[in-house]
Amino acid sequence: MAKSILITGGARSGKSALAERLVQDIGPDPLYIATAQAFDGEMEDRIGLHQDRRGPEWGLIEAPLDLTGALAQAGTRPCLVDCLTLWLTNLMLAERDWREEADRLAALIGTLPGPVVFVTNEVGLGIVPETPLGRAFRDAAGTLNQQVAGRCDEVFLCVAGQPLKVKPHGS
Amino acid sequence: MAKSILITGGARSGKSALAERLVQDIGPDPLYIATAQAFDGEMEDRIGLHQDRRGPEWGLIEAPLDLTGALAQAGTRPCLVDCLTLWLTNLMLAERDWREEADRLAALIGTLPGPVVFVTNEVGLGIVPETPLGRAFRDAAGTLNQQVAGRCDEVFLCVAGQPLKVKPHGS
Amino acid sequence: MAKSILITGGARSGKSALAERLVQDIGPDPLYIATAQAFDGEMEDRIGLHQDRRGPEWGLIEAPLDLTGALAQAGTRPCLVDCLTLWLTNLMLAERDWREEADRLAALIGTLPGPVVFVTNEVGLGIVPETPLGRAFRDAAGTLNQQVAGRCDEVFLCVAGQPLKVKPHGS
Repeated sequence: MAKSILITGGARSGKSALAERLVQDIGPDPLYIATAQAFDGEMEDRIGLHQDRRGPEWGLIEAPLDLTGALAQAGTRPCLVDCLTLWLTNLMLAERDWREEADRLAALIGTLPGPVVFVTNEVGLGIVPETPLGRAFRDAAGTLNQQVAGRCDEVFLCVAGQPLKVKPHGS
Repeated sequence: MAKSILITGGARSGKSALAERLVQDIGPDPLYIATAQAFDGEMEDRIGLHQDRRGPEWGLIEAPLDLTGALAQAGTRPCLVDCLTLWLTNLMLAERDWREEADRLAALIGTLPGPVVFVTNEVGLGIVPETPLGRAFRDAAGTLNQQVAGRCDEVFLCVAGQPLKVKPHGS
Repeated sequence: MAKSILITGGARSGKSALAERLVQDIGPDPLYIATAQAFDGEMEDRIGLHQDRRGPEWGLIEAPLDLTGALAQAGTRPCLVDCLTLWLTNLMLAERDWREEADRLAALIGTLPGPVVFVTNEVGLGIVPETPLGRAFRDAAGTLNQQVAGRCDEVFLCVAGQPLKVKPHGS
């Protein structure tokens, strides 16, 4: 069975850079599955920065919504999914049933022919968001992260660019 | 001396589920000490969800304010206190002296005849809250968590459903 | 080469107290490099609290902006820099080029004649801030933390007063 890894952490904690290193260590011909959509200049800048850092050897699939389709399409190539939190945002904005999509994704992990590294965000460690939408998103993100972490072989928490292994763990 | 455990983490990080497993591993006849008050539909739904997950073997004490009284009443039964952050919220809303209550709780841990697992929330890892009340709550929650963690035998941080032991630790 | 340590964590997670213990364990004649500026009563209270906890053996340099100058001035005395997040805030409020200052600080670490312990804050683990300024600050803080952590010998994450070593790590 191909290896699956989840990398979580806060904003600008080094998650994507770690994920890129892990995917390239796994094998050649890596594939970047981007869930980002460039709504505005801020996001365009961020996407451009990530593309510049990755080399020309990376393939690219854009999958703002159909993540499971993109993973199925990837075959045995090592994949980097960046990131689950944006995918969730896209699903919610498109009024798709994110629980169903999360279940489908979780079921897929462990059956994929190729290795995959997922990047996600921790968003639940601040004070309670003021809006119902903020709370709903925070709860959905936590639920999705738990589901994916439960199915992945390894989980890392990125802290100030340093990876901390939380699964498997010794305690 | 009976064992005491603190489980902390973000929203929807799997804290309560971990706490329930730990309490049931400790021994039979577990007691759930609920600090939640159902102010609104959102909270009612969450309470119902937690009750459904726990089995009928669990006893229940509701203790929105008098947590130390509830713990004293529990005797040697293994207790799950869910959660300290809501207890703090209730104390602050009722304009009780939360520092005094926190001191009393901290003093009680280590003297209890039965084992206890506390659940709490990390709320201090976002940007600085905009309101003085938000900042005061965040500071109070951090202070309470430090006090309880200092007195407990074991502390776990839940990340995406995975427990990470932070006390005792090797470093 | 003198030792360098970064301590990160949420609000009221015990970072400063841990840093003070570490600096005093390193050697005598410690120096406190304060980046805080007392803009308001809230901040004045916090500064006073920290001063009372430290003993009279501590020297003090106030360095709201010129942190690299203060470190150069410290010589071989063990230093506590408290904290990087406030320094970043001061730089941004003064419309200084924080990237340039961060590069200069990072270059300095590892060349200092004396040991240094930095305190910083994790601010990127809540939901996305509503304002562009909030997002820019969050990104800058994460970037600065990564840079400093990359250059320090040891990095600790404080959770409820408990230090968790994230660098060097075994995984």
